[in-house]
Amino acid sequence: MTTSRKIGAAPLKVGCVGGGQLGRMMALEAPRIGIQMMFLDPTGIHCPAAQVVPHSQIIEGSLKDADKIRELAKDVDVVTVEIEHVGVETLQELEKEGVNVQPSGRVLSIIRDKFLQKEHFDAHKIPLPPFRETQTVAAIKDAARDLGLPLMLKSRTGGYDGRGNAVLQTASDEDIADALQKLGCATETNGSSNGQVLDLYAEGWINFVCEVGVMVVRSANGEDTDSYPAVNAIQQDSICRVVLAPARHVKTEIRQECEKVARNAIDSLGQGASGMFGVELFITKEGSVLLNEIAPRPHNTGHYTQDACTISQFENHLRGVCGLPLGSTKMIVETAAMVNVLGAPSGTEEDTLKSSNAALKMPTAIVHWYGKLECRAGRKMGHINLTGSSQAEMDSYLSQLLAIEGIPISSLPGGRLESSPLVGVIMGSHSDLPTMNAAVDILKKFNIPYEVDIVSAHRTPDKLVSYSRAAAERGMRVIIAGAGGAAHLPGMVASMTPLPVIGVPVKTSTLSGVDSLYSIVQMPRGIPVATVAIGNALNAGLLAVRMLCTSRPDLRQKMMDYQLEMTDMVNEMSSKLTDLGSDAFLDQMDSKNQAVNV
Amino acid sequence: MTTSRKIGAAPLKVGCVGGGQLGRMMALEAPRIGIQMMFLDPTGIHCPAAQVVPHSQIIEGSLKDADKIRELAKDVDVVTVEIEHVGVETLQELEKEGVNVQPSGRVLSIIRDKFLQKEHFDAHKIPLPPFRETQTVAAIKDAARDLGLPLMLKSRTGGYDGRGNAVLQTASDEDIADALQKLGCATETNGSSNGQVLDLYAEGWINFVCEVGVMVVRSANGEDTDSYPAVNAIQQDSICRVVLAPARHVKTEIRQECEKVARNAIDSLGQGASGMFGVELFITKEGSVLLNEIAPRPHNTGHYTQDACTISQFENHLRGVCGLPLGSTKMIVETAAMVNVLGAPSGTEEDTLKSSNAALKMPTAIVHWYGKLECRAGRKMGHINLTGSSQAEMDSYLSQLLAIEGIPISSLPGGRLESSPLVGVIMGSHSDLPTMNAAVDILKKFNIPYEVDIVSAHRTPDKLVSYSRAAAERGMRVIIAGAGGAAHLPGMVASMTPLPVIGVPVKTSTLSGVDSLYSIVQMPRGIPVATVAIGNALNAGLLAVRMLCTSRPDLRQKMMDYQLEMTDMVNEMSSKLTDLGSDAFLDQMDSKNQAVNV
Repeated sequence: MTTSRKIGAAPLKVGCVGGGQLGRMMALEAPRIGIQMMFLDPTGIHCPAAQVVPHSQIIEGSLKDADKIRELAKDVDVVTVEIEHVGVETLQELEKEGVNVQPSGRVLSIIRDKFLQKEHFDAHKIPLPPFRETQTVAAIKDAARDLGLPLMLKSRTGGYDGRGNAVLQTASDEDIADALQKLGCATETNGSSNGQVLDLYAEGWINFVCEVGVMVVRSANGEDTDSYPAVNAIQQDSICRVVLAPARHVKTEIRQECEKVARNAIDSLGQGASGMFGVELFITKEGSVLLNEIAPRPHNTGHYTQDACTISQFENHLRGVCGLPLGSTKMIVETAAMVNVLGAPSGTEEDTLKSSNAALKMPTAIVHWYGKLECRAGRKMGHINLTGSSQAEMDSYLSQLLAIEGIPISSLPGGRLESSPLVGVIMGSHSDLPTMNAAVDILKKFNIPYEVDIVSAHRTPDKLVSYSRAAAERGMRVIIAGAGGAAHLPGMVASMTPLPVIGVPVKTSTLSGVDSLYSIVQMPRGIPVATVAIGNALNAGLLAVRMLCTSRPDLRQKMMDYQLEMTDMVNEMSSKLTDLGSDAFLDQMDSKNQAVNV
Repeated sequence: MTTSRKIGAAPLKVGCVGGGQLGRMMALEAPRIGIQMMFLDPTGIHCPAAQVVPHSQIIEGSLKDADKIRELAKDVDVVTVEIEHVGVETLQELEKEGVNVQPSGRVLSIIRDKFLQKEHFDAHKIPLPPFRETQTVAAIKDAARDLGLPLMLKSRTGGYDGRGNAVLQTASDEDIADALQKLGCATETNGSSNGQVLDLYAEGWINFVCEVGVMVVRSANGEDTDSYPAVNAIQQDSICRVVLAPARHVKTEIRQECEKVARNAIDSLGQGASGMFGVELFITKEGSVLLNEIAPRPHNTGHYTQDACTISQFENHLRGVCGLPLGSTKMIVETAAMVNVLGAPSGTEEDTLKSSNAALKMPTAIVHWYGKLECRAGRKMGHINLTGSSQAEMDSYLSQLLAIEGIPISSLPGGRLESSPLVGVIMGSHSDLPTMNAAVDILKKFNIPYEVDIVSAHRTPDKLVSYSRAAAERGMRVIIAGAGGAAHLPGMVASMTPLPVIGVPVKTSTLSGVDSLYSIVQMPRGIPVATVAIGNALNAGLLAVRMLCTSRPDLRQKMMDYQLEMTDMVNEMSSKLTDLGSDAFLDQMDSKNQAVNV
C-alpha cells in the first residue's frame, strides 16, 4: 500500500535553500536517519547550519541566485527550503529538468505570494478573513469601505515576522500614504499611486480571541497528512514569543477544528505539498476558525515538538520531503511550552544568554541555542522548550523564563498564567469543609497542586455545569467532591467530565451519612463515582494521589513510602502495647484522652 | 552556593579523544548549549563524529599519540574522552601543564586498568565479586582453588564488548593454556608462564539473575552526583543488545540499591570524576548488588536517555565535564527500551537497515544510525529507542524489532516479553464472573490491556499477598476487585499496593449486597478503595479508564466520545417516547421484555 522510500546504504542527500536556525535544526536530526544535508546560505560557513555539517556541504550565495541553486541541486536527491523567499523560478526550471523539489515550485509559488495563497484557499473553501486585491490607492479605499476599518494592508511577497504588514485606521490619504511608506511602496505624498501597481492586498480586521498554530506534515506521495496538536502562538510586536502546547483556553472541539482546517488547507495544495507546513489560524469570539497564513517548512510554532513529541517537526520535514514514512505527531508529555530567546535590548550575548543559563538549572527545560554569528537586539537567537506532566508544575518555570525575556504574563491567552490545579476539591456547603480538609492536607503532603471551592448541585446548578465542563481543559486531572444527605454533587460532576470523580459521603445527623453514601455510590451504569467511606476525606486525598500515580513513578514511590510510614506507626504502637501490657496501655490512653481508633 | 560555569558569548570548546558513535552523539547535542566540539580519531574525517562537525574540528591520529592529543588539547577549554583506552599518560602530563582534563587522568588511569578499578572500589567498600591478582599460572591455580570454578580470567586493560575475558572451567594446564591463548598471553603449551608476568586478574564466578546498568553523572566540582534509573542490560555474546528502562523483574528496593551503589562508586573516585559514567552491576539470586565494572563516559546502556529523559547522557556528559549545572536524570515517559542495531550476518548495509526501516513505521520508535563508513557483521551500526506510556503498548513494537535483529525473547529478563496488563480484574470467586465481566467488556471497548484472575482473600491469602505486592512492578496501573459478603479482597489488595484499587460490591442473596458495599467502602483512614455501586462492574471498568485518562489525552477524548454516545442513546429513547406517547411506548417495552432501567 505504502510506496515509501527506505533508508538505504548510501545516505539520502537533501539540499536545503537557506542555512539558518531551521536548517541547522534539520541538520541535527538528519544524520540519525541516514540523511546528509547540503545548504545554500548567503553567509556561507558563518550560517547556523554550517556549525553542524562539514563545510564541504555549505555553498555561499544568495537564496535567489540561479547558479548557486543549481549548484546545490546538482548532487542531491531532494531539494527543499527553510524559507519561502527564495528563487522559486529556478526551482521550477530545475523541476522541469527532472530535479526532485519538495515542496514543489508550484506549491512554493502559491505560498510565497500571500494574495495567491488567499485566492487558492478561498477557491478550496478554506475559511479565511475577508480579503481583496489592492493594486491602487482607489482599490484600498474601496476595500476600506467594503471590509471596514481598521483595515490590514499586507505586502503580497517577502513579509516575515510582521514586516510587510500595516494597519490602516482610517482611509484618509495621509494614513494611506503612511501605510504605503511603511510597506516600502514609493508614492506621491498625497497618497495617489500615480498609476503604479501596488504589490499589496487588504484583509478585513479580525477581532480574534487567540492565535493558534498547527504544524501539518504531508508525505511526498500525498498518501499521508497528519497534524501536531494545535498550540497557542503568542506574538509580541508581530514576532512569535511563546508557544503553549496543546493550546490553552481553547475548547477541545475548536482545537480539533483548527487541526482539521489546517490539514484540509495543506491537502488542498495537492501534489508537491510535502514536508512540514506551519499553519497560523485565528479563533474569533464566536468560536469560528479562520486561516491566517501558512509557511511551507518547519516553523517557530513547531519547535516544541523537538522535546514534546517522539518525532520532531524537523525529522518529519525530512521524512516528508524524502518520501520516508511519516513519524508520529503525538505528544509524549502532558504539556509543553516554547519561549523564544530574542537578542537582549543591550544587544550583548551575555544578556541574551540569561534565560538559557537559567534554563540549565530547570529540570524540564531544554536549551536550543542557534549559534548565530552576530547578536542583535530583537533577533531570534535561540529558544527554550519546557515540558511537564502538568501545567502547574511547568508553569512555575515558564513564568521565570517569561520574566527574564521580558514577556508580560498579560500577553498569554486568558491574560494570565493560571497555575491550573491537578486536583479540584469541591463540596456542597461550607459546613462540609471540616470534613473535606483532610483531603487537602494529603494533597499538601504529597505536593499536588490543588484548588478548593464550594459548588452546590442544588443551590448553584449553573456553577456545577461550568465547573464540571471546564475542569479537564483547565488541566485538572481528578475531582474530589464531598456532599451530605441527597448528595448529588459527585455524580452530577461525573456526568459532565471525563475525569475520575471521587465522592466523599459527608456524615449527617439524621442518617449518620448512610443517606450520603447511597446517594453517591449507587450511580447508574455509564457514570462512575469512586466512593470512599463516610466522612473519610483523607482517603479521598490518598485515592487522588494513587490515581495520579498511574503515570508517575516518583509519586508511586512516595505512596509506598507513606504506606511504610503507616506500618511503622502501627508497629510502634504494637511494641508499646506488648511492652506495657494492656492495662497500663489503656490507662495511658485514657489519660491522654486518645481515641482507640488510630 | 553552586559555582557552576555558564553558557557564554564565546562557545565552550570541548576536545574529545575518540570520534566514534559516542562522540558523534555528543556533537549532535553540543551546539544547542553553546559547546563546540573537536575530535581526535584514527579514521579522521571518516569517523562518525566527522559527519556532524566542520572538518576543521577533526584531527586524524591514534588515540594514544601524544602529539595528536596535545594538538587536540591546544585550543579547547576541556579535554574529555569517549573511550578509556587512550593515551592517559599524555593526559596526565597535560594536566600538570594546566590543561583541564575531565574526567581526570588519575580517574581514567584507575578505570582503564580493571584490576586497579577493583582494588579501588574494594578499598572504598563498594560490593564486588571476589577477585584476585593473577600474574602467574600458579596464581591462577591458587585463585581457582580459593574462588572456585568456573573462574573468570580478565585482561587488566584493553577489554571491550567481551574481548579480554575468558572462562576457566577447570584449572588443568590445558584449560589455562587455552584461556591464556584467548587472552593473547604467549605461554608454553604446558601452561607454565615461564616467569612472564601476566597482565590478568581473576574474578569469582557470579550466578547473577540479571545484569543492570546505571548511568551516573557527576559535576566537575564534585558538588552534584545523580543517577538515571537502573535498567536491564541484556547481553548476547558479551555485547549489549537490549536495554529496558526502568529495569524489569527487579524489585524497587533493589533497583534503588543499584542506583545507590553506582553513585557511591563514582563518588569514591573523588576529584576529577566528572561527566557520565556507565556502571554495570550484577544482581545475585539472593538479591545482593555487586559492581561489575564502570566506564568513564556515556555508555551503550544509557542511549535510551536520548528519547526517554529531558536531558540525555550526552548532554549531561558535556554539562558535567564543562562545569555547567547538571540536567535532570528523570524519565519523562513511563517506559523505554533500546535495541542495538548490529551489522547483519550478511554484512550488507541493506540487511542491517531492516530494523531501522521497520522502526520508521512505528509510532514511538526513534532511529539512531551512526553513519559508519564500513558495515561489518556484528559491528554496532546504530540503535533504536522505543518509548511508551505502558509496557504493553511498547512491547509489541519491541518484539518486532527483536525478531528482525535476531535477539531471542528468551534472553530477556524473566525469559519472556510479558505483555503486562494495565488493569487487573480480580474477584473472590468464579461465581462473581457474570457480574465482573461488564468491567472486562469496557476495557476491551477502550482497548486497554487487562488480565482477569480469581484471587480470594480468605481461600488464597498467599496469592492475595503476592499478587498485590507484584502488581505495580509488573506494569499494572489499576486493579479492579470484586467480592461479596464479608468482601475483604479490595481493601486487602489496597493495603499492599500503591495502585488505585476499585471495589465492586457483588450482590448477595442474604443482604442484597449491602454487606459487600459496607465491607468494601468503609475502609480505615490511610487505605482508600474506590467503591462503585452494588453489582456495577461496568462502572468499575469506566472508572479504571478515567483513572488512566489522567495521563492520556487520547483516552480522555475517547471517554468524552463515550459520554456523547450515551447522551445520544438517551435522546433517541426520548424522541421515541414523545413520538409514541407513553402508553404505546410502554406496550412496546413490555413486548420486548425490556427492563425500565436502561
